[in-house]
Amino acid sequence: MGSKLWGGRFVGDTDPIMEKFNESITYDQRMWDADIRGSKAYVKALEKANLVSTEEMEQILQGMDQISEEWSKGAFLIKPGDEDIHTANERRLKELIGAPAGKLHTGRSRNDQVVTDMKLWLRDAITMLTDNSLQLISTMVERAAIEIDVLFPGYTHMQKAQPVRWSHWILSYAVVLSRDVERLLEIKKRTNILPLGSGAIAGTPFDIDRELLRTAEFLFWASLCLTHLSKMAEDLMLYSTKEYSFVTLADAYSTGSSLMPQKKNADSLELIRSKAGRVFGRCAGFMMTLKGLPSAYNKDLQEDKEAMFDCYDTVHAVLQVTTGVMSTLKINQSVMEAALSPDMLATDLAYYLVRKGVPFREAHGLSGKAVFAAESKNVSLNQLTEADLAAISPLFGSDVSSVWDYRSSVEQYSASGGTSKSSVSAQVEHLRNWLKTRSP
Amino acid sequence: MGSKLWGGRFVGDTDPIMEKFNESITYDQRMWDADIRGSKAYVKALEKANLVSTEEMEQILQGMDQISEEWSKGAFLIKPGDEDIHTANERRLKELIGAPAGKLHTGRSRNDQVVTDMKLWLRDAITMLTDNSLQLISTMVERAAIEIDVLFPGYTHMQKAQPVRWSHWILSYAVVLSRDVERLLEIKKRTNILPLGSGAIAGTPFDIDRELLRTAEFLFWASLCLTHLSKMAEDLMLYSTKEYSFVTLADAYSTGSSLMPQKKNADSLELIRSKAGRVFGRCAGFMMTLKGLPSAYNKDLQEDKEAMFDCYDTVHAVLQVTTGVMSTLKINQSVMEAALSPDMLATDLAYYLVRKGVPFREAHGLSGKAVFAAESKNVSLNQLTEADLAAISPLFGSDVSSVWDYRSSVEQYSASGGTSKSSVSAQVEHLRNWLKTRSP
Amino acid sequence: MGSKLWGGRFVGDTDPIMEKFNESITYDQRMWDADIRGSKAYVKALEKANLVSTEEMEQILQGMDQISEEWSKGAFLIKPGDEDIHTANERRLKELIGAPAGKLHTGRSRNDQVVTDMKLWLRDAITMLTDNSLQLISTMVERAAIEIDVLFPGYTHMQKAQPVRWSHWILSYAVVLSRDVERLLEIKKRTNILPLGSGAIAGTPFDIDRELLRTAEFLFWASLCLTHLSKMAEDLMLYSTKEYSFVTLADAYSTGSSLMPQKKNADSLELIRSKAGRVFGRCAGFMMTLKGLPSAYNKDLQEDKEAMFDCYDTVHAVLQVTTGVMSTLKINQSVMEAALSPDMLATDLAYYLVRKGVPFREAHGLSGKAVFAAESKNVSLNQLTEADLAAISPLFGSDVSSVWDYRSSVEQYSASGGTSKSSVSAQVEHLRNWLKTRSP
Amino acid sequence: MGSKLWGGRFVGDTDPIMEKFNESITYDQRMWDADIRGSKAYVKALEKANLVSTEEMEQILQGMDQISEEWSKGAFLIKPGDEDIHTANERRLKELIGAPAGKLHTGRSRNDQVVTDMKLWLRDAITMLTDNSLQLISTMVERAAIEIDVLFPGYTHMQKAQPVRWSHWILSYAVVLSRDVERLLEIKKRTNILPLGSGAIAGTPFDIDRELLRTAEFLFWASLCLTHLSKMAEDLMLYSTKEYSFVTLADAYSTGSSLMPQKKNADSLELIRSKAGRVFGRCAGFMMTLKGLPSAYNKDLQEDKEAMFDCYDTVHAVLQVTTGVMSTLKINQSVMEAALSPDMLATDLAYYLVRKGVPFREAHGLSGKAVFAAESKNVSLNQLTEADLAAISPLFGSDVSSVWDYRSSVEQYSASGGTSKSSVSAQVEHLRNWLKTRSP
Repeated sequence: MGSKLWGGRFVGDTDPIMEKFNESITYDQRMWDADIRGSKAYVKALEKANLVSTEEMEQILQGMDQISEEWSKGAFLIKPGDEDIHTANERRLKELIGAPAGKLHTGRSRNDQVVTDMKLWLRDAITMLTDNSLQLISTMVERAAIEIDVLFPGYTHMQKAQPVRWSHWILSYAVVLSRDVERLLEIKKRTNILPLGSGAIAGTPFDIDRELLRTAEFLFWASLCLTHLSKMAEDLMLYSTKEYSFVTLADAYSTGSSLMPQKKNADSLELIRSKAGRVFGRCAGFMMTLKGLPSAYNKDLQEDKEAMFDCYDTVHAVLQVTTGVMSTLKINQSVMEAALSPDMLATDLAYYLVRKGVPFREAHGLSGKAVFAAESKNVSLNQLTEADLAAISPLFGSDVSSVWDYRSSVEQYSASGGTSKSSVSAQVEHLRNWLKTRSP
Repeated sequence: MGSKLWGGRFVGDTDPIMEKFNESITYDQRMWDADIRGSKAYVKALEKANLVSTEEMEQILQGMDQISEEWSKGAFLIKPGDEDIHTANERRLKELIGAPAGKLHTGRSRNDQVVTDMKLWLRDAITMLTDNSLQLISTMVERAAIEIDVLFPGYTHMQKAQPVRWSHWILSYAVVLSRDVERLLEIKKRTNILPLGSGAIAGTPFDIDRELLRTAEFLFWASLCLTHLSKMAEDLMLYSTKEYSFVTLADAYSTGSSLMPQKKNADSLELIRSKAGRVFGRCAGFMMTLKGLPSAYNKDLQEDKEAMFDCYDTVHAVLQVTTGVMSTLKINQSVMEAALSPDMLATDLAYYLVRKGVPFREAHGLSGKAVFAAESKNVSLNQLTEADLAAISPLFGSDVSSVWDYRSSVEQYSASGGTSKSSVSAQVEHLRNWLKTRSP
Repeated sequence: MGSKLWGGRFVGDTDPIMEKFNESITYDQRMWDADIRGSKAYVKALEKANLVSTEEMEQILQGMDQISEEWSKGAFLIKPGDEDIHTANERRLKELIGAPAGKLHTGRSRNDQVVTDMKLWLRDAITMLTDNSLQLISTMVERAAIEIDVLFPGYTHMQKAQPVRWSHWILSYAVVLSRDVERLLEIKKRTNILPLGSGAIAGTPFDIDRELLRTAEFLFWASLCLTHLSKMAEDLMLYSTKEYSFVTLADAYSTGSSLMPQKKNADSLELIRSKAGRVFGRCAGFMMTLKGLPSAYNKDLQEDKEAMFDCYDTVHAVLQVTTGVMSTLKINQSVMEAALSPDMLATDLAYYLVRKGVPFREAHGLSGKAVFAAESKNVSLNQLTEADLAAISPLFGSDVSSVWDYRSSVEQYSASGGTSKSSVSAQVEHLRNWLKTRSP
Repeated sequence: MGSKLWGGRFVGDTDPIMEKFNESITYDQRMWDADIRGSKAYVKALEKANLVSTEEMEQILQGMDQISEEWSKGAFLIKPGDEDIHTANERRLKELIGAPAGKLHTGRSRNDQVVTDMKLWLRDAITMLTDNSLQLISTMVERAAIEIDVLFPGYTHMQKAQPVRWSHWILSYAVVLSRDVERLLEIKKRTNILPLGSGAIAGTPFDIDRELLRTAEFLFWASLCLTHLSKMAEDLMLYSTKEYSFVTLADAYSTGSSLMPQKKNADSLELIRSKAGRVFGRCAGFMMTLKGLPSAYNKDLQEDKEAMFDCYDTVHAVLQVTTGVMSTLKINQSVMEAALSPDMLATDLAYYLVRKGVPFREAHGLSGKAVFAAESKNVSLNQLTEADLAAISPLFGSDVSSVWDYRSSVEQYSASGGTSKSSVSAQVEHLRNWLKTRSP
């Protein structure tokens, strides 16, 4: 029992399984740096408040620096009784500098320390994830700039819908990710207020509720971000099947089969897709743990850290792997363009009639009849004869041939966010500028 | 089939179960107003772009106004084939004004309409929920102002920890709710950009992804907000048990038992607590539906609306009921104060020693010994004799009696967010000012 | 207040919003039949225990029959104060037969009634879902029997892996669904014990915990079942894309696009896929509501019914729509078989070497080299010359040509659950027999 | 690349982050024993099928035994390229016995191995969790047997409802846990079919779907089991507060506060309560990962193992800690019985009138009036004078005093599952018998 901080009044023994169940040093040791930085800020505040002498402060700061060195060298020894990172660092400080160590915790509960450490750790984590995201977005934007002239089928309901630029597809995800970054930075902004460093001596038991909020928000942010990437991975997986053959993954992001020598699996994409589940599971678990808890600290909240670490590690890896995939992917332009088919211009055929004064709904119906006629004759839509079309509407003339041009078709969509060349270029420029404002 | 918008090429029949499975009019009709407002904005844009004439625009606007009147009077008749609100309104418009109705949908897919309608609807919903939240917070703040002198036990781990002001407890939740409002307003800000109303004719298939994000964020916002209220409800449920007896719920928010005549159950609080689960379930379900979907529109996304409506209705009701509970609750001040006990001042006893130069950790241990001594003697902590205390530390003197004062104890916590009177008053003022800036 | 069952001691008023928040008649009225059957069984038990006279029992039974008729005719009038189905039926009974109605609830709390009603309702619901499942499985099995000779590519990682029978794919899901039925019947078995009907007069407050368990199990069952169908729908969606073109959905299970006349969307499959999320969300929400609740009845548990109803309705619809899809789907056999490619026989090529004494791992590596050689030469695997193959291993002889036969390949897998004709036929027979044992 | 099993055709490099993202050896090494046992069974099947010679089989078996010894001694060295436990063991086997090692994988894909290993591992895990559960239930049953004479308040809605035996409360959870064991054993029964050991040479790509089902079922089982324990922990937490003081946790299952020397927190119970969230999060995450996946193996499924291990470890620890808590808890009988109050007999007061011929609903109303009268007079229910009662109903006579006896009250509930002594004893016996049938 000896070394337990709260050992004063306890006389019974602790069950070793309970001890293991209770400890968090196994995972919270990764906050060692945040814990030391927090304590260093705190002792300075204590000195200002005349609660430790300048000399004691110096001793504590030097002790903390030594502990920091031990951790960074892998030389810190965890001892039995070090149930969390805070206890471990404090125990070590006492070994190093003796009595003054006991003053460091004046007016600070362990919960205060947990709140501070998590805040500091999360702030750094967010900085890293922001960098990872920016690198991915930048890769995507530059790729979109280069491949702007490539057309391919835009799908809805997994059915070919309209011709779009490949870059338009890339940028649609780049835009979504840029919004994820904005949201992440909002969370970071909220982590920048540091009660403990601000000289406050007496914490409030309700501080923990603010921390929970932040953690929950971060877990949900991670879920949303990976849900977006799960969708992008799904698209790419389809595009990389033999059946589509639009893209080829670099070998570095594929693996083979132990049984089937011919297989080249898009493992990276499947892993990316899967992680949305993992991370949302963490979010769901933490929300369920929170539900119905009384206010202030309850030990249940210990669940926050493993969830936070796992989500960070997962998003960190996924963003980097996605960057790798996107920067090494090869596109098969000829296959992409060969996949465009005249029936994808049926909407354009309707607009041809709209321009001749037919209300849209009626034009839509007539175009639908043309599609049906082509299917019945087993020809493609642009192979219907003038007679075929005239039977559907007398307004179809020989100028209908102008409709059958995919490049003209995409150029119609020149509004903001559209798929025309000018519109896609504008999106590239917009994102390049945005990246500049967000880069460190 | 006749009236199906996309009926041109279909020859088979539809399975009635499939028809029912597919339709959304049952629930999306509540967006009728948003749908009409969206169409009115859209036809004006069409007219500016010379895609409808001014006369046609006028006909459409008048038709829309008439449909609006029918809905608001409950006179709108849903007919077979009206599979969603957009189809229903369009069908009715055609009945009312004939051919020009067909022009309204030029360049607008149903997905564009869904996106616009949901955005408009959600904006109004957020305005309402903001109002509900502000009313609740205001109730709480004014109650806290009036009852500022009431002390009661602050709990951590469901154990009495330190004396705090009852108002401090109230405000801790008011602050959390004020942050929920801030976050809600951030979501609203993002809904204010309306592509369809902005004159753009050709939408982009990827718009839907922005809408999903917003919906998902709203569902998670609702989950977080109700998780906060589930915690507050749990606290109040404890406080309202016979065992605590700190508060008494108004009859209006209690119910009796059909079997046990003596029971008065805090049903309102139990319902509030339960709804965090319901709403998070909606969020979880929608995230799972989204996971791994290909980009752009897939019919799976139809799940968004029921989730959004249910979360709105639930939060709307919970906020109002909570306001009712908080404005009618009676507190039992004498019971609350009688629940304070000297052992809750053990930390203050440690600080007594700290002020005499003992490092905090050592002082904490000595105070723990005093607690143990009192338990052994079966007396309360403040009933230990001077001799008892002297046996623990010679630094305990007769002035230790000054420690046993709950009101002095709380006054020590005068830093920002603390439980001293000045600090709690400052929180009241801060929130009152914040309410002013947020009120319409 | 008047009509509130627990009205005796209450003096305050009820908030109308609270009233609405609290009531459940809106949704639990669908248990009217279960409620009446439960009460009829209960009054018979009361009579046996001499707690009501035979005459009173007769009056109550007749009253209940009349109420039943009113509900089934849609003539039952819900009045203000009818907060749930139990209250409504009891109120009506009193109107019909007067005083004796008050005896029906001797020794029975409303919670007892809820438990009984849900049990009866769920038992019927399970019977219906079992029937729906059996019909779907039967459709699949008979289809598999007819189309047993059709080969197509088996995929892993969305890459072509090995030739398999189309029927094998169908049956893999039929088997999974048959296990879902088995599990559902286990839940049903547990609902067959009816404490209230068994003559027990005094219920136990802990009965509710058994009901919760059942409800939770049912919600998870629904989630698992729909997760299976989401996977089957995903497969079919891929197979029905233009890119695969293996299957064509009947028009009855497809819809068109309001904008794009050429589109024929597999809406039914997308809806099926989406519902796994919806139903799991209900399960997640209910589990979260349960978490950390004190034992016996808490109002939070009211959430169980809407979750149960929604999951039932959803699974009921999904099973029927899936049956419709599977019985009307057209397969494109020539496209399916044309999609087989020689590289899918690379494993067979390795086994060719294994049969000549090469350890499997080495054979696998050599076959991999052959695949690479074919890719380099841009020919298909079976177009490598004898010289090409001999350069990889001298063991390759002219008899290697026997490898390039898809029908022989599948016949190798004749073990239980394999893809040979005999094995697939055995699965058909096995499922047909199983269906017989499970059909009513 | 060298050592990659599927290295034959790859020419590019692997990204180290991707490599780490892809590997599973970090966590799946704990299945080393299952992997070795599976391979030993498999090689025997290969020998029977004449696919390896008897000598080769012997070599493989001996090599496997040596690897087993290395693992159990902690001497197994994981090398770069050992991406999972299967690869690691195979690589080591080749080092030990050379060429014959390559024959072990004839007709067996890595997915077959994963399926077999998980099945074997899960079977052992279930055996362990069954033992843990039986020990907990046994502890509870024996405790209930000893403390059968202790009465305390049964609560619904967190309000005192009726007097019940403390043992009745204990057994209500013991019964729920016994059902959890039954369900767990059903899952185990389904894991006992071992395709690989049964001599089948060619696995089927769809085997994986059966494994998924099992894993998903296990994760949900863990969620349900811990949800039950979260409820029990919540009850005990309430009972152990100062306000209730019904039970005192052993020091071994409590911890102190680093700041507040007087605190003794029920950390064990809070941790138990929290784990329901964690485990359900894993289940939710895995279900979300599964949703919409195409059939057969996809790399996404790799998520199953960490989820399974974490749930096992968590349930394993929770069951043991709960056993510790339940076997060391002290009850405060006098406090428990002092907490009974006459108003908890209001239902009995109603039954007093029922016995005099008043219909239950009317009797309930009259008893409610008595409760109200007592509250108005500020006396307890049994302190109402005969005159007070007579004013409510002339049927109240002097024999009403017999109602005010808690021990008589509980004896009324003698039906199966009731709270009378005979009924609780019967439950004890029933569970003791059940335990005998389930113990190994």
